[in-house]
Amino acid sequence: MSVKNNIVVAQSGGPTAVINSAVCGTIQQAMKSNKIGKIFGATNGILGILREELFDISAEKPEIIEALKQTPAAAIGSCRYKLKSLDESKTDYQRIIEVFKAHDIHYFFYSGGNDSMDTADKINKLAAQNGYELICMGIPKTIDNDLACTDHCPGYGSVAKYVAVSAMNAGKDTEALYTTDTCKILEVMGRNAGWIAAATGLARREAKDAPHLIYMPEAAFNFEKLVADVKEVYKEFGRVFIVAGEGLKDENGNYVTAERSNLGTDSFGHAQLGGVAEMLKAVIEKEVGIKTRFNKLGTCQRSAMHFASLTDVNEAYMCGATAVKHALEGLNGKMVTLIRNSNSPYRCSTGLAELSDVANGEKKVPAEYINKKENGVTQAMLDYVRPLVQGEAPIKMGWDGLPVYMRFERKPIEKKLKSYM
Amino acid sequence: MSVKNNIVVAQSGGPTAVINSAVCGTIQQAMKSNKIGKIFGATNGILGILREELFDISAEKPEIIEALKQTPAAAIGSCRYKLKSLDESKTDYQRIIEVFKAHDIHYFFYSGGNDSMDTADKINKLAAQNGYELICMGIPKTIDNDLACTDHCPGYGSVAKYVAVSAMNAGKDTEALYTTDTCKILEVMGRNAGWIAAATGLARREAKDAPHLIYMPEAAFNFEKLVADVKEVYKEFGRVFIVAGEGLKDENGNYVTAERSNLGTDSFGHAQLGGVAEMLKAVIEKEVGIKTRFNKLGTCQRSAMHFASLTDVNEAYMCGATAVKHALEGLNGKMVTLIRNSNSPYRCSTGLAELSDVANGEKKVPAEYINKKENGVTQAMLDYVRPLVQGEAPIKMGWDGLPVYMRFERKPIEKKLKSYM
Repeated sequence: MSVKNNIVVAQSGGPTAVINSAVCGTIQQAMKSNKIGKIFGATNGILGILREELFDISAEKPEIIEALKQTPAAAIGSCRYKLKSLDESKTDYQRIIEVFKAHDIHYFFYSGGNDSMDTADKINKLAAQNGYELICMGIPKTIDNDLACTDHCPGYGSVAKYVAVSAMNAGKDTEALYTTDTCKILEVMGRNAGWIAAATGLARREAKDAPHLIYMPEAAFNFEKLVADVKEVYKEFGRVFIVAGEGLKDENGNYVTAERSNLGTDSFGHAQLGGVAEMLKAVIEKEVGIKTRFNKLGTCQRSAMHFASLTDVNEAYMCGATAVKHALEGLNGKMVTLIRNSNSPYRCSTGLAELSDVANGEKKVPAEYINKKENGVTQAMLDYVRPLVQGEAPIKMGWDGLPVYMRFERKPIEKKLKSYM
Repeated sequence: MSVKNNIVVAQSGGPTAVINSAVCGTIQQAMKSNKIGKIFGATNGILGILREELFDISAEKPEIIEALKQTPAAAIGSCRYKLKSLDESKTDYQRIIEVFKAHDIHYFFYSGGNDSMDTADKINKLAAQNGYELICMGIPKTIDNDLACTDHCPGYGSVAKYVAVSAMNAGKDTEALYTTDTCKILEVMGRNAGWIAAATGLARREAKDAPHLIYMPEAAFNFEKLVADVKEVYKEFGRVFIVAGEGLKDENGNYVTAERSNLGTDSFGHAQLGGVAEMLKAVIEKEVGIKTRFNKLGTCQRSAMHFASLTDVNEAYMCGATAVKHALEGLNGKMVTLIRNSNSPYRCSTGLAELSDVANGEKKVPAEYINKKENGVTQAMLDYVRPLVQGEAPIKMGWDGLPVYMRFERKPIEKKLKSYM
């Protein structure tokens, strides 16, 4: 390798409140090294690399970079572009190596979920085959908390804190107005894993507190059981507060409902979910006869920087910085993981996993975290998630009473290759 | 009147983040007076009075009462029970007076919207007709901000702050992932008035910031215009962020959509709204062909104590306390109002309005606050709302990383009358 190698940083998949903190860690750590030349950002993840749409993060103001820690979503830009196998998407992979070569990029830091780790792994393998010196490191990111090989994922603690407080708040609302607004459904994200739904269990300090019922995709959902559960809670408390994961499935593994839309599949082939709450509402009103309304937090939950977990922000930063440290030590093809060394007091350090191990794994909520009735969580689940929501991330407030977020100036890098895509 | 008169405090209608602050002001102010005996809470508003379900707030711990300032929703309990005219609901009104007599209640403080002010006004008039000494004072409360006679309503500043930050956060998310998640709709509350939707305009510091389009019920909605607006924004920014008030109406005054439910009308006869976002999503996907998702904040927006406006909390307290001060001076049949003495610097004091004037009024977003294209707000609207969202209300956080909220112990008062209802 030449003395000064350039690096590229990219973000992928659904944004989170703290993915920018991870990138901040990567950038600030890289800036400390005299081995690293320029730090490029790839606009909209792997798409930005394919299209040679890079900008010079090294040229951004230090205060803009620092403000990444307090800005939600993905400041470099994200995407859901899926690369297939090396054979099927060969030209894409080759193009990526070409772009790297053209800009003397020898380090690739990719913050994302398991699809992104798969992409990074394949790029890494192709580079090795071609004799191109490249170090690919993954930085975990997903609110869904479903990545294999890590205790938890940056992004999860913040969404957990936000959905839990939302359940507390809306639960108080239902408690106040139960005489007419008797049943409330809070629909939360989580395509195949119920980690986000499960986190709302934190809000239930007493039995009468919301949420009374939590449904996760890990347990087969059926409407007869829902109706029985709702009737039981209604009898006991006079009101019912339900949290439903968007990805509820029946005993045959079919989604309880999918959006009625011809644009309803994302570019990874995942069914675009939605409408679970509407479905539950209709059934409860018909079968139980109590007025039911729903809240659907949608992308507000994964971008809620104004109530992010400080623990999560700090751990995300640590992951981003640690990836650089290891890369400079010569490690390659790894994703930084989080290891829980102890729970009380909570201590967390980083570890490493092979990209390929993360790529195709998936971590669901284990059976011992779900109660026997499959409509709530156990103490073990609460003990797992509680440390992750600790502390409130500082946010800078503007003169207008709202947070101040950053945006890169994006000084573009001159393109050296023919256009692609 | 006897030397020591008891008072009753009640809350009505949809909860807010700060209705408890108003009640806290009422209680703490009343406790300072040696003219007042016991302070009763009426469980679930006027229903609690009709059913003689009262509890002794004076017996609650001071720290519980203090914690009202940091607890969302309606700690005494709310309702949507609608009393009709004095003739139509005569037995209800007479019952209320009987309950007051039975418990030596000579002061009635009612925190609510225009329906509640109507109820308080009618009780007051019947008491006068019957020669029963009673002072009825109204404390304004509504996130909808549509009460007549007051510059703004306690509850509005907090919902405004929350929906604005939600638009900022979700807007950053859309900006990061526009390549696939191109269009986002944020559905907010506001049955007939667009004040809540309009407040999200604060989030748009630059033209490219969300929300790009804001639709309010004050402007007739039509789908052709929506499609044209969306196409224009998409062309300019490559992404579209829309805020839609739940109560959008077409040129004939019909709601754009109502929930498909046989329980779809509340007990005041208002249509229960919902589904606006789904409707817009379907049209945009079909006519513009861009992937569209929606967030529906629902009751999370009116109970968001974790990001409430300090200005709002303080003004709510002031309204609650001022109602007691005026009542003890002998004023009767009034609602406390908020008067904006100056905007820069912002100065606000209280005034008074006749309950009857508030009862049947409604304050909509004026034409000069809506832009010419009827898809956004003007600088005048931003200048109006900005002072109301200033400051962050303090919240006490628990060991579990979530806010600590209070709940009354509710020592019930012995019933002295036959049961009713």
